[in-house]
Amino acid sequence: MTVVDMHTHFLPETWPDLSQKIGGADWPWMRHDGAGRAMLMLGDKEFRPVQEACWNSARRLEDMDRDGVDIQIMCATPLLFGYQRPLQHAIQNAQLFNDLALEICAQDPARLKTLCQVPLQDIDAACAEASRAFNNGHVGVQIGNHVEEKNLDDEGLVTFLQHCAGEKIPVLVHPWDMLGRERMPKYMLQWLVAMPAETQLSILSLILSGAFERISRDLKICFAHGGGSFAFQLGRVDNAWRHRDIVRQDCPNLPSSYTDRFYVDSAVFSHDALALLVKTMGEERVLLGSDYPFPLGEQTVGELVRSQPGFSSRAKRGILGENAMRFFDLEAVSSKSEAMLA
Amino acid sequence: MTVVDMHTHFLPETWPDLSQKIGGADWPWMRHDGAGRAMLMLGDKEFRPVQEACWNSARRLEDMDRDGVDIQIMCATPLLFGYQRPLQHAIQNAQLFNDLALEICAQDPARLKTLCQVPLQDIDAACAEASRAFNNGHVGVQIGNHVEEKNLDDEGLVTFLQHCAGEKIPVLVHPWDMLGRERMPKYMLQWLVAMPAETQLSILSLILSGAFERISRDLKICFAHGGGSFAFQLGRVDNAWRHRDIVRQDCPNLPSSYTDRFYVDSAVFSHDALALLVKTMGEERVLLGSDYPFPLGEQTVGELVRSQPGFSSRAKRGILGENAMRFFDLEAVSSKSEAMLA
Repeated sequence: MTVVDMHTHFLPETWPDLSQKIGGADWPWMRHDGAGRAMLMLGDKEFRPVQEACWNSARRLEDMDRDGVDIQIMCATPLLFGYQRPLQHAIQNAQLFNDLALEICAQDPARLKTLCQVPLQDIDAACAEASRAFNNGHVGVQIGNHVEEKNLDDEGLVTFLQHCAGEKIPVLVHPWDMLGRERMPKYMLQWLVAMPAETQLSILSLILSGAFERISRDLKICFAHGGGSFAFQLGRVDNAWRHRDIVRQDCPNLPSSYTDRFYVDSAVFSHDALALLVKTMGEERVLLGSDYPFPLGEQTVGELVRSQPGFSSRAKRGILGENAMRFFDLEAVSSKSEAMLA
Repeated sequence: MTVVDMHTHFLPETWPDLSQKIGGADWPWMRHDGAGRAMLMLGDKEFRPVQEACWNSARRLEDMDRDGVDIQIMCATPLLFGYQRPLQHAIQNAQLFNDLALEICAQDPARLKTLCQVPLQDIDAACAEASRAFNNGHVGVQIGNHVEEKNLDDEGLVTFLQHCAGEKIPVLVHPWDMLGRERMPKYMLQWLVAMPAETQLSILSLILSGAFERISRDLKICFAHGGGSFAFQLGRVDNAWRHRDIVRQDCPNLPSSYTDRFYVDSAVFSHDALALLVKTMGEERVLLGSDYPFPLGEQTVGELVRSQPGFSSRAKRGILGENAMRFFDLEAVSSKSEAMLA
């Protein structure tokens, strides 16, 4: 079998000064501090410490070998999205990072794959860049889960998803620009509370607005972090749909009936949560995703799934790779991982 | 056994015009539309349709008999809290609704119990009203899960919780004033996404700030809606604590080790979620709570717990009543519910 980690992040080692190259201020840049450590900067502010696995493909391949991962799919850190920039700046920004991502993959293109980013503030430009990048070798597109106050049921964003469905471009939805962050100044609460809420909000926006009724079933869409709090709150949502008219006004079917329209990754970090997630979504709709190489990711990629009590060998093979092979239409690579499926 | 529904809401049938009696504008009031229906108004805006079970104790007792509930514990709808009001207004408001709540309970004080509310914007006043109401017959206090941008780890709010611990006043924490509501204009998304995030944020605030290390173990504190998204996200939180210094900086022990410091209600509306919740919290720390009589509540109170696959009779008896009897130090009433525990 082929093990695929479909949720990993990259940062190029360096990139041009975007204020000079593109224009505008407060762009992200990398301050290298030596010994494989760097600080991701936003203008003159420290945003997050990062390490060389973000940009060093040899290091990534070593870690993949250690963890028995055959194929890794990278995507940008959401800080790079630039959705708030003027359109021409955002287009250049997306193209620049998309092309740099392919350079990181070039060391072993059979094992290192990447998703593109798009200037999602403009739907025509987003569709054009998704198609350009997909034709250049990106295996799909990562989008932030909202653009300013527009959730995924926004008419333009639905048009973008339809474009991806038509061109068979797989979509990963990643939470970012977290709601309520003024209430979460410490302890990474934005990552622990707001991110799962963002992702749940995105899924419910597509369901309760009726957008899934209008979007083609060809759409392949996957939500990060196990879909956030969606699976655990689904009973609450179904109950609300049954008993409150304004919940069901645009959604003709029970919310839980739409779980056959999307996928989630496996990054939930507990066996009990993973069991509930797979029971809710079905074993064919959960894809191994680690959030590598960040500290909030799974530190030994695939360990949770491999050691999950009660999962059949078939379920584990699906989650560890076969589901992602189908989702991204990937070609198998000679596997280093077979022996690790206990 | 005695079945206790510890999370139900009331609204008095009517109350004085608060603008005249207290001062200030945009107070809540009830517009009665006949046939047991009313609209909870906020100033001249319609806030939410409600029905007579909110105020009619005979109707409440009928519904309790129907569902095999022996004791019901009521608390105010959070719209009544008034935390944003000038202090003297908020004190009068809390006293008024606390006294009206006891009037609703007066028809059958052995079966109808109530939690008080307090002017939580001022800690001395909140402590004073909690003690006054508790001495007058309230069995505990309900608080909103935050006051403006102050989470539960705010020094003043911790002082209030310490007061409750010292006076043995049980605390129910209810989400309100929902974060990110500008992103959730429709489909009750504020109730489906933001409320579970609010509650998770409150629990994590107490854990990650180290507040549970400072607060007495005598504190009895319970979080509504099964603790929101806390249980499902706990693996993510433990993983973050292990691998990121700023997550654990004020919290000496693994976040999941603090589940013996609080309780949650059972209002999660799915067997899979309830199973995960009880596995996470322990069967002695989940209390039957329905959100009666609202449409987002459990429509047949206790049905989820009674029909839960895999729970022992002992676990069901605990969740349906024995845990709440201990939490609130209640006296048993002659039970109408024994036959309903299948």
